[in-house]
Amino acid sequence: MEAALARLLPPAHAAPARLHEAMRYATLEGGKRVRPLLAFAAGEVSGAAPERLELAAAAVELIHAYSLVHDDLPCMDADVLRRGKPTVHVEYDEATAMLAGDALQSLAFQALAENELADAPRRQLEMVKMLAAAAGSRGMAGGQQIDLEATGAVLSLPELEFMHIHKTGALIRAAVLLGFWCGEKVSEKIQDQLDRYAKAVGLAFQVVDDVLDHDASTATLGKTAGKDAKQGKPTYVSLLGLAPAREMAEDLRAEAHAALDGLGERAERLRQLADFVVLRKF
Amino acid sequence: MEAALARLLPPAHAAPARLHEAMRYATLEGGKRVRPLLAFAAGEVSGAAPERLELAAAAVELIHAYSLVHDDLPCMDADVLRRGKPTVHVEYDEATAMLAGDALQSLAFQALAENELADAPRRQLEMVKMLAAAAGSRGMAGGQQIDLEATGAVLSLPELEFMHIHKTGALIRAAVLLGFWCGEKVSEKIQDQLDRYAKAVGLAFQVVDDVLDHDASTATLGKTAGKDAKQGKPTYVSLLGLAPAREMAEDLRAEAHAALDGLGERAERLRQLADFVVLRKF
Repeated sequence: MEAALARLLPPAHAAPARLHEAMRYATLEGGKRVRPLLAFAAGEVSGAAPERLELAAAAVELIHAYSLVHDDLPCMDADVLRRGKPTVHVEYDEATAMLAGDALQSLAFQALAENELADAPRRQLEMVKMLAAAAGSRGMAGGQQIDLEATGAVLSLPELEFMHIHKTGALIRAAVLLGFWCGEKVSEKIQDQLDRYAKAVGLAFQVVDDVLDHDASTATLGKTAGKDAKQGKPTYVSLLGLAPAREMAEDLRAEAHAALDGLGERAERLRQLADFVVLRKF
Repeated sequence: MEAALARLLPPAHAAPARLHEAMRYATLEGGKRVRPLLAFAAGEVSGAAPERLELAAAAVELIHAYSLVHDDLPCMDADVLRRGKPTVHVEYDEATAMLAGDALQSLAFQALAENELADAPRRQLEMVKMLAAAAGSRGMAGGQQIDLEATGAVLSLPELEFMHIHKTGALIRAAVLLGFWCGEKVSEKIQDQLDRYAKAVGLAFQVVDDVLDHDASTATLGKTAGKDAKQGKPTYVSLLGLAPAREMAEDLRAEAHAALDGLGERAERLRQLADFVVLRKF
């Protein structure tokens, strides 16, 4: 994955060099790569070729990387630490960070369109459409807007879930489905199973993030811990309490496993990833 | 075009409403729509259906609209007036403006992927790739970075041209080629002609922008006049002087016309647009 991203990103010396450096800084050497891992694992279910999965996974990760760069900007979360390093606008400057994020988004769609990623070009167009919808105002960007407006507000559990289904869930679902669509053995029934799996894992990911933000240290996380509470953001921990939030994550892990029933060996990586998402300590 | 954009943008009341309002505010009721006009005109050369052109043109305009929203932000040009109205971050807030721009970019790619726009799906994937490249770090976003770094600097004429080929030229070329590719009568030879045309018109557009920024009033332009000089940005006027810049625009208009030689009646709109781009007063 690292090699694929490094190849896909323009070289740091190509003009405009500062922008390309910032794009590489934002993307390479860091992150858990959960979305790429999910894409690769979903590709095992449909027998997808690694060369295709690499690009689909990279496209999703580029969208994720751009969203972090913009999210860290002073007008959003104003964060200075990400993946154990200074955030992009701290290392470079605000304007470069914004443009780097913008260009990373464009690059994601280029990665999805410029090589053959699916057996039928029509399905590949579906992939572009799916990633665009997942990234846009009814997906990730919309979730970030809801997040903005929720700061300092009291949300109900369904409202919190609505926010996270957009903010994190949409892109995690895109990772799973794009990986799956790279393969040959694509059926509606299995797609529905993976969709259920992705929904459970996406939500579990956020619940665990909230638990870790409450529990772990900045050093372990590589990003500022305790930030949500300080900013008055509603979280699963603030809404449910720590023990019930942990329980909810466990329930979602079980749900993710149940969704994969009958898929046997080829879904083993997906099962491992559901475990990783819930049991991780960072 | 207005109707197509209004249909394509999520309704203002759909959640998250504030984001969707900002996206509509940024895109609708304003702008010269030069890029859509170019796409439609290029589509006449290849006999493209209006339903296709509408979407291809909208995709390009959405990219353009997003770039203006981000360009006006305090960390970039810090402008308060655009298309005769307060800029998006003034009317809403910085975070919403950034997210609206981000979501407009996603929507552009969705528009290009979700309906049939070309005879072959493979060509439609080419269209996605072309728009992504034109918008990205080796296209428009790269041009904006070069622009940032050029503020206060003295550029040579080739350096200034390099900046504008990226900043404005890439997207204008995309408008022309995407419109052309929507049609049936697509040939390499004509494509090369349109490419030459697009290059000349794209550069002419910028030269005339510089002349108008120097010449016209804020009221006529609907955006802050004299901004470039105030910000110490190199322009064709500052580099060449007013009369030679006007002459250069005229030469580029002649070049655009020459590129269309032999295309007869079906390139008439493109000729008119080359005239409009150079002779406009706003």
